[in-house]
Amino acid sequence: MPELFQVVTTTEANARLAGHLAPLGRVESVLLPAALDRVLAEDLRSPGDLPAFPRSTMDGFAVRAGDTYGASEGLPAYLTLCGEVPMGRSSELTVGLGQAARVHTGGMIPSGSDAVVMVEHTQALNAETIEVVRPVAVGENVIPVGEDVRAGELLFPRGHRLRPQDLGGLAGVGVVQVPVAARPRVAILASGDEVVPAEMTPSPGQVRDINSYTIAALVQRAGGEPHSYGIAPDDADKLARMARAALEAAEVLIISAGSSVSTRDMTAAVIASLGAPGVLVHGVAIHPGKPTILAMAGDRPVFGLPGNPVSTMIAFELFVAPALRCLLGASAAPAPMSQARLARNVASRPGREDFVPVRLERRAGELWADPVFGKSNLIYTMARADGLVRVPLDLAGLYEGDLVDVRMF
Amino acid sequence: MPELFQVVTTTEANARLAGHLAPLGRVESVLLPAALDRVLAEDLRSPGDLPAFPRSTMDGFAVRAGDTYGASEGLPAYLTLCGEVPMGRSSELTVGLGQAARVHTGGMIPSGSDAVVMVEHTQALNAETIEVVRPVAVGENVIPVGEDVRAGELLFPRGHRLRPQDLGGLAGVGVVQVPVAARPRVAILASGDEVVPAEMTPSPGQVRDINSYTIAALVQRAGGEPHSYGIAPDDADKLARMARAALEAAEVLIISAGSSVSTRDMTAAVIASLGAPGVLVHGVAIHPGKPTILAMAGDRPVFGLPGNPVSTMIAFELFVAPALRCLLGASAAPAPMSQARLARNVASRPGREDFVPVRLERRAGELWADPVFGKSNLIYTMARADGLVRVPLDLAGLYEGDLVDVRMF
Repeated sequence: MPELFQVVTTTEANARLAGHLAPLGRVESVLLPAALDRVLAEDLRSPGDLPAFPRSTMDGFAVRAGDTYGASEGLPAYLTLCGEVPMGRSSELTVGLGQAARVHTGGMIPSGSDAVVMVEHTQALNAETIEVVRPVAVGENVIPVGEDVRAGELLFPRGHRLRPQDLGGLAGVGVVQVPVAARPRVAILASGDEVVPAEMTPSPGQVRDINSYTIAALVQRAGGEPHSYGIAPDDADKLARMARAALEAAEVLIISAGSSVSTRDMTAAVIASLGAPGVLVHGVAIHPGKPTILAMAGDRPVFGLPGNPVSTMIAFELFVAPALRCLLGASAAPAPMSQARLARNVASRPGREDFVPVRLERRAGELWADPVFGKSNLIYTMARADGLVRVPLDLAGLYEGDLVDVRMF
Repeated sequence: MPELFQVVTTTEANARLAGHLAPLGRVESVLLPAALDRVLAEDLRSPGDLPAFPRSTMDGFAVRAGDTYGASEGLPAYLTLCGEVPMGRSSELTVGLGQAARVHTGGMIPSGSDAVVMVEHTQALNAETIEVVRPVAVGENVIPVGEDVRAGELLFPRGHRLRPQDLGGLAGVGVVQVPVAARPRVAILASGDEVVPAEMTPSPGQVRDINSYTIAALVQRAGGEPHSYGIAPDDADKLARMARAALEAAEVLIISAGSSVSTRDMTAAVIASLGAPGVLVHGVAIHPGKPTILAMAGDRPVFGLPGNPVSTMIAFELFVAPALRCLLGASAAPAPMSQARLARNVASRPGREDFVPVRLERRAGELWADPVFGKSNLIYTMARADGLVRVPLDLAGLYEGDLVDVRMF
């Protein structure tokens, strides 16, 4: 299948993979405090009205609005106090014509009344009577039943990632246990004869495993559950054996491929051997990150990420993160994105997307993105950057001052 | 101390609090995979050079650059193969004059050689000889020792929050155990006679606790460890007792104060009773969120956040989050911030900062911030928003099309 080994655009690459992906459909039920950043597995509808009773937004007096019409400093309306609404309780009170009941902010509006006069617009004449010096309209200073949400209203759609305010909103209507998508189990396998575990002291010619750690953290951020399966040598049989073992327990496999052409080809061959449909994409029109492999072994996505640390992050962001979103059933990700002006010209080659690490800085209130020039095989190129700027496929570069999107890391 | 109960600006409020705050200094040592988003408790310097040996960035041949000068398609340089550098091992080879050694991407450059010729620019003449058709300069296609980082170089300063690429960078130099700031323990206490736990069915006049959940999630995001201490009634003695118990185990106390004037005053009095120096700020020139209380009980910050859900989030962001950063010793937070154009005019009152919930949308490639108009006492006002736009103290509003910062939630 030689046609598969042609470089394709990111759009085409993702389209090929997406055709094979579907949400995993594993659902967990978690308590609210554990639901932060989790993805809803079902549409959530409100079991009731919020608020469930009409509430005062002010400290003051519940009245019939009609009784205050025309009231002014010179000609106040006189109302008879019929009681006080206790906080946290329903009141037996009924406010009749010419009557007023004391209410506190958040308290229930008693029957008969339809508005609240702020205490600042009243004066106590004696223990039973108040003067109202400004009129109120019907509904004024009152939150009616269901103004926040109504019973049956869609609170959040399936696929929504829960934020702090969303947890508050769910608590407000009594949803304390939330059905969320289980985190996809992602196996991570490093490879390379030269790669040793980070805790080892490398001999000359050896390097420590960097990508397993970066990839695991990226998986975590993307909502997956990373599992590291160690380092495979540049040996097709051993790599295949380790890859199969990893895939047994996982729903996704990421192989951090070697960087030489021969080991990359070997990785592709091993991935192809894991099962049909096999390799879907081998080579993407991006820089850095071109030698990325996207594949499916049965219903499990398998990624061969380039060995360079910068390429790894870019390929993860472009291909693995969207795949994990799909497995989670998550709606389009609001990835932490900033807009900024480019601080220098950046050259690119038409026909490939370039990704440029940038550092953000603020000048006179505006954000500027300053390219960090560093080789893609240096991990500290990304450690010194705040994010990445993309130069689109069809452009020969971007100009200083251009408004660009910055994907924050 | 009546002067304390005057409304102050956010800058003044934070300055008063900051004068009393210092990093907690509790340090934990965590393994790399658990270090994501944690704050470094010490400057980290590189224990060694990265790379520790000169590495090839290409598949090709290690040579003496001088041997290739002037080489071209028409007049190639002929070099004698002296061996192959195995991946992951130091080579015994020495590349002499007129010699070349086969190397793979990431492999070690053998002694004697000072550049790498890409395999694409060579041709095998026979088993012992290659033709080089393009010259290379000294250092070409080679990462010299320490180009990524040098031994002793500052990797990340104390206070840096660790991102995925930073974990990779630490792995690369063998730092697998990381000293990080312990998470400040934050006690959260809701209050109000009308508030019941979210899992209860409220009787008429009662509402479910919303803010404990929102605040706990915000604490988590800010790097703290939230502990909920339940709901106190509107009773000064009981609130004081519960507040003292909570403060015993915690380093920070947040009281979600009642919303009526009387309970707010009671909360302030209770907070003042927890210990000197007591209440530092009672009332801030922001809308919504004005009745915010900032205090210190001994060396522990205590916050009285307004009861309205939107106000709670704004006051948390403005005052609690920076205090937690200070306790963590974290450097200035790159809070998820986006720039966008305002989609509508927004009126404000000079002399107070206004915060407007907005929803982001993309129009012709540019981000626009569309105000979500909703009362600050409705939690779904924030659930329907992506972030907040600030109208500065001295402005009467912002105009449609103005470039604004959006604090994302």
